[in-house]
Amino acid sequence: MAEFIAPIERLVEEYRKLPGVGRKTAIRYAFATLNLSDEDAARFSDAILGAKRDVYRCPICFGLSSSPSSCAICSDDQRDRAQICVVENPKDVMTMERVRGFKGVYHVLGGVLSPLDHVTPDDLTIKELIARVGQGDVREVIVATSPTPCGDTTASYIARILEPYPCEVSRLAYGIPVGGDLEYADEVTLYRAMEGRRFYTEGGKN
Amino acid sequence: MAEFIAPIERLVEEYRKLPGVGRKTAIRYAFATLNLSDEDAARFSDAILGAKRDVYRCPICFGLSSSPSSCAICSDDQRDRAQICVVENPKDVMTMERVRGFKGVYHVLGGVLSPLDHVTPDDLTIKELIARVGQGDVREVIVATSPTPCGDTTASYIARILEPYPCEVSRLAYGIPVGGDLEYADEVTLYRAMEGRRFYTEGGKN
Repeated sequence: MAEFIAPIERLVEEYRKLPGVGRKTAIRYAFATLNLSDEDAARFSDAILGAKRDVYRCPICFGLSSSPSSCAICSDDQRDRAQICVVENPKDVMTMERVRGFKGVYHVLGGVLSPLDHVTPDDLTIKELIARVGQGDVREVIVATSPTPCGDTTASYIARILEPYPCEVSRLAYGIPVGGDLEYADEVTLYRAMEGRRFYTEGGKN
Repeated sequence: MAEFIAPIERLVEEYRKLPGVGRKTAIRYAFATLNLSDEDAARFSDAILGAKRDVYRCPICFGLSSSPSSCAICSDDQRDRAQICVVENPKDVMTMERVRGFKGVYHVLGGVLSPLDHVTPDDLTIKELIARVGQGDVREVIVATSPTPCGDTTASYIARILEPYPCEVSRLAYGIPVGGDLEYADEVTLYRAMEGRRFYTEGGKN
């Protein structure tokens, strides 16, 4: 006989698609799922479909939105639209939001420039960022890409390509451990990084 | 705004119900789920429902079965019904099956005796085990509960309660690290434990 009966084997294989989940962990999850009540299993199953069905991309910042129109941050009149924080992916928006002090808006690139992975500026939302900055009301672009070689390259690229525009371009600075991933930084580190951001162009701090 | 939009927050909460999954891991899983294709998400969602819907308890051994009748092991004529391996839960059947040499059948207790958690013999399938042994064809009962205090107590209890019957009662022995969990034992350790099992009652090895 197979190691597991078919429905369990199938669930194990599905769990293995999650990041960092090997076979033993997947088996553990599968048996935990079997122990859920029918209602809980239905709720879990529906939450997966719901996340795919009810999550949209914001047409302004490309972050996640619960409606097809602009997201909660872009629609919020209290947010400073003159300050755009550029991040790699939608999850980073949530991470940056933990810095309660930041009142600007976001722009999600959808990745970083990476010649090895054939990621070029056309694969990211850089054109759309230029369009937003080109509308003229943007005072500062804070590049919050990860402190990795690709993240740094992307930041430099954005700084160069925004040179013709009258906005400042800054980069998150000390605090984030080099080589680390943005999502694992704690709130204080993120706040320090936001405070100590370094300006690419000369000019006063805001 | 909330830290996440509602459909994601809901999915994160569902993932947190899995064993050993904290908030950060759940968030990681939730965003990985968002990146699945619609088909993959539907397949994942359906696998959860399928595991609840298509998995039955075997009426003989109480292990998992893909049909309401007896499981693949209990229905297999090649298996030695005179040798019953008693395990704590259905997952342990799968674990023990990795010992290719074992050709007997199983009995799933559904837990171990634990006074602190109010688990008494009536909460386990001990009555059903006695009924199986009482039919008279059983030569040996191998108790493969975890090497923990509760597992040991359960093993001793089974040995004592089966004393009136003409079958041997043995217990998995050296090889399994004390205090550990059966599922993390490797194949060789499991095989050694099976080979070196210790008999409660006097009498020859089979």
